[in-house]
Amino acid sequence: MRVTVNRKAHFNAAHRLYRKDWDDHKNEQVFGKCSNPHYHGHNYELIVSVTGEVDPETGFVMDLKKLKELIYQEVELPLDHKNLNTEVAEFRNLNPTAENIAIVIWNRMRRKISQDMDLSVTLYETPRNFVVYSGS
Amino acid sequence: MRVTVNRKAHFNAAHRLYRKDWDDHKNEQVFGKCSNPHYHGHNYELIVSVTGEVDPETGFVMDLKKLKELIYQEVELPLDHKNLNTEVAEFRNLNPTAENIAIVIWNRMRRKISQDMDLSVTLYETPRNFVVYSGS
Amino acid sequence: MRVTVNRKAHFNAAHRLYRKDWDDHKNEQVFGKCSNPHYHGHNYELIVSVTGEVDPETGFVMDLKKLKELIYQEVELPLDHKNLNTEVAEFRNLNPTAENIAIVIWNRMRRKISQDMDLSVTLYETPRNFVVYSGS
Amino acid sequence: MRVTVNRKAHFNAAHRLYRKDWDDHKNEQVFGKCSNPHYHGHNYELIVSVTGEVDPETGFVMDLKKLKELIYQEVELPLDHKNLNTEVAEFRNLNPTAENIAIVIWNRMRRKISQDMDLSVTLYETPRNFVVYSGS
Amino acid sequence: MRVTVNRKAHFNAAHRLYRKDWDDHKNEQVFGKCSNPHYHGHNYELIVSVTGEVDPETGFVMDLKKLKELIYQEVELPLDHKNLNTEVAEFRNLNPTAENIAIVIWNRMRRKISQDMDLSVTLYETPRNFVVYSGS
Amino acid sequence: MRVTVNRKAHFNAAHRLYRKDWDDHKNEQVFGKCSNPHYHGHNYELIVSVTGEVDPETGFVMDLKKLKELIYQEVELPLDHKNLNTEVAEFRNLNPTAENIAIVIWNRMRRKISQDMDLSVTLYETPRNFVVYSGS
Repeated sequence: MRVTVNRKAHFNAAHRLYRKDWDDHKNEQVFGKCSNPHYHGHNYELIVSVTGEVDPETGFVMDLKKLKELIYQEVELPLDHKNLNTEVAEFRNLNPTAENIAIVIWNRMRRKISQDMDLSVTLYETPRNFVVYSGS
Repeated sequence: MRVTVNRKAHFNAAHRLYRKDWDDHKNEQVFGKCSNPHYHGHNYELIVSVTGEVDPETGFVMDLKKLKELIYQEVELPLDHKNLNTEVAEFRNLNPTAENIAIVIWNRMRRKISQDMDLSVTLYETPRNFVVYSGS
Repeated sequence: MRVTVNRKAHFNAAHRLYRKDWDDHKNEQVFGKCSNPHYHGHNYELIVSVTGEVDPETGFVMDLKKLKELIYQEVELPLDHKNLNTEVAEFRNLNPTAENIAIVIWNRMRRKISQDMDLSVTLYETPRNFVVYSGS
Repeated sequence: MRVTVNRKAHFNAAHRLYRKDWDDHKNEQVFGKCSNPHYHGHNYELIVSVTGEVDPETGFVMDLKKLKELIYQEVELPLDHKNLNTEVAEFRNLNPTAENIAIVIWNRMRRKISQDMDLSVTLYETPRNFVVYSGS
Repeated sequence: MRVTVNRKAHFNAAHRLYRKDWDDHKNEQVFGKCSNPHYHGHNYELIVSVTGEVDPETGFVMDLKKLKELIYQEVELPLDHKNLNTEVAEFRNLNPTAENIAIVIWNRMRRKISQDMDLSVTLYETPRNFVVYSGS
Repeated sequence: MRVTVNRKAHFNAAHRLYRKDWDDHKNEQVFGKCSNPHYHGHNYELIVSVTGEVDPETGFVMDLKKLKELIYQEVELPLDHKNLNTEVAEFRNLNPTAENIAIVIWNRMRRKISQDMDLSVTLYETPRNFVVYSGS
């Protein structure tokens, strides 16, 4: 009996959509106001979803207190109240679109979640724009 | 690396559940108060979900500004503040249930989204009733 | 010790913004697409707020089961799945704007709520547009 | 054309996480404050999702009025305003974790939904913790 | 320039509506299923609202980190994952209705908030039932 | 008959809490991680509330299309996708706390709303922190 357990979390960050190897004009042309060199920001809402067997002893797929703590260590501490472009190593040469942020979070979480469990990451950039990445 | 990008949109419309080839009594028996001949209406909340490869150049599956514009052209312009039964061609002979509205929206959007991407449509008729259609 | 108790409810209805004594052109000029003669509709979300002394015996300002039942009788039964313009007596000669609908609901509820209590009505026409009427 | 129709419902219940065959110390060690012997409680939000062919006659996968009534009979009546540990037969020897409650609800609903339809249950224990069970 | 700052918080608890000086029959007659002797529970959502002058030096009415910490000490620690009737001193002889819980929280917070500021407490017992208490 | 009409809007921006006349150490001590020199950001959710007499001719306090357009001109155009500290004139010497942003928005809107109407501004900095300013 495989069940998916989900935990919501939250972080605030500044970013801009931007490629170093493009000039400002091209960045602005492709990314519009999201490329503003002075940055803008978001309240990112995150759902981390872990699918696995229910442990017959505890009735848990995974202790949600542990999942909450993992999200704190792997996502909130490194990303909350940060400038994604200048302060987060993974985005030094990677455009921090919602898609790429979700993939970065998935990679960070994947290392910490048991390999017999599936992992999916849902990231809301705004209440109207969100992305889902499940690792393939 | 395939990611799903999602965009929420909104439209208001009047409708009634009704088959022309049934008499009023049978319509009322099957569809209850949803068949009221004077119409009622909803704030339809829509999520359009597109799954595809992340373009390594932009970091986008698809520019969400473009998806927003497509939803405006294909869904909001033709359906918002309309009477679905009398003013929207697809429902001239099709009962505008949430299921059928989702399929109509999916068909309209499918023509505009690149064929190497998957498409799914989620439609909330009320905050408690919603449907999902993914094309098969 | 005066406390405000609030109960949320919900109804779906069709309407159009329209004055009988104006021609179609003027209605369309003032009310735009909201004046579509074929009607459109909304999921109206309602909050009824009653302020009064806490009864020291029950700990209630008012039994919320009773408030829920009053809203059902006074608002949901007469308005849900109805066409406000053609099926609801109060709007025969009154434009069913959110403001006027809130006033109509307040008047209906006011007759049923004890006069030593204050009454306020909040009506969401869409998730982004809402009105509040408190009786003066 | 298979569509998923979803209905949201709600129930309030008390519970504690607890195994009879463990002593209080071990229950407290594994389940923390969720094991408080005096119980705590939740507003459980439930989404029941049914996937099937759209009936070409009605435009329904399944009449949502019927699904709403089934949820009332199978979930709300037996679980709402109850103590899950002491008043619900399925949890006499089963720890009422969100995972197990979702499985119990799925089993109750599965018996009532036509076998050519797929069934999935989403259960929110809090706005930040939720689980999904689809029967395998 | 007076501004209201608001902080949302959350706690889960079990309770029953019940007066010791009434017999079970009268409790059940007045409070219905909310009086179930085995308890039920809720995810209580809380908004604490503090109104005061904006400090021209910091731009704060009150540091929200400090308000968050006060709510944790005065509300979450004593009420979260508790049985309100049996484990919280204020309810030993007070019926834990939403009204009374809001008053208890207001009294606890009032002692900790500077007297030149106004205080209001909003408590959601369910997403559809909530109360507001402002101290008079 | 005075009614309050409310319109929700949204903008994303970067900011940091910071006083130029304090050194970095003091800024960090008072404002914590909100003072990060690389900025962070938010999805600000805004509610603009206008209270006035219902015009008996239109049934409107104020045409919400007009209010929506005013919010776009006065708030969204100048603040959306901006860095509040470096790109918005009002914050050149004013700390962009939620309180101060609400006051700035209120001042901008006040000039455009008829003086016989009351104005209130609610600003969500995060889903858990929000402020209200009504002009006094």
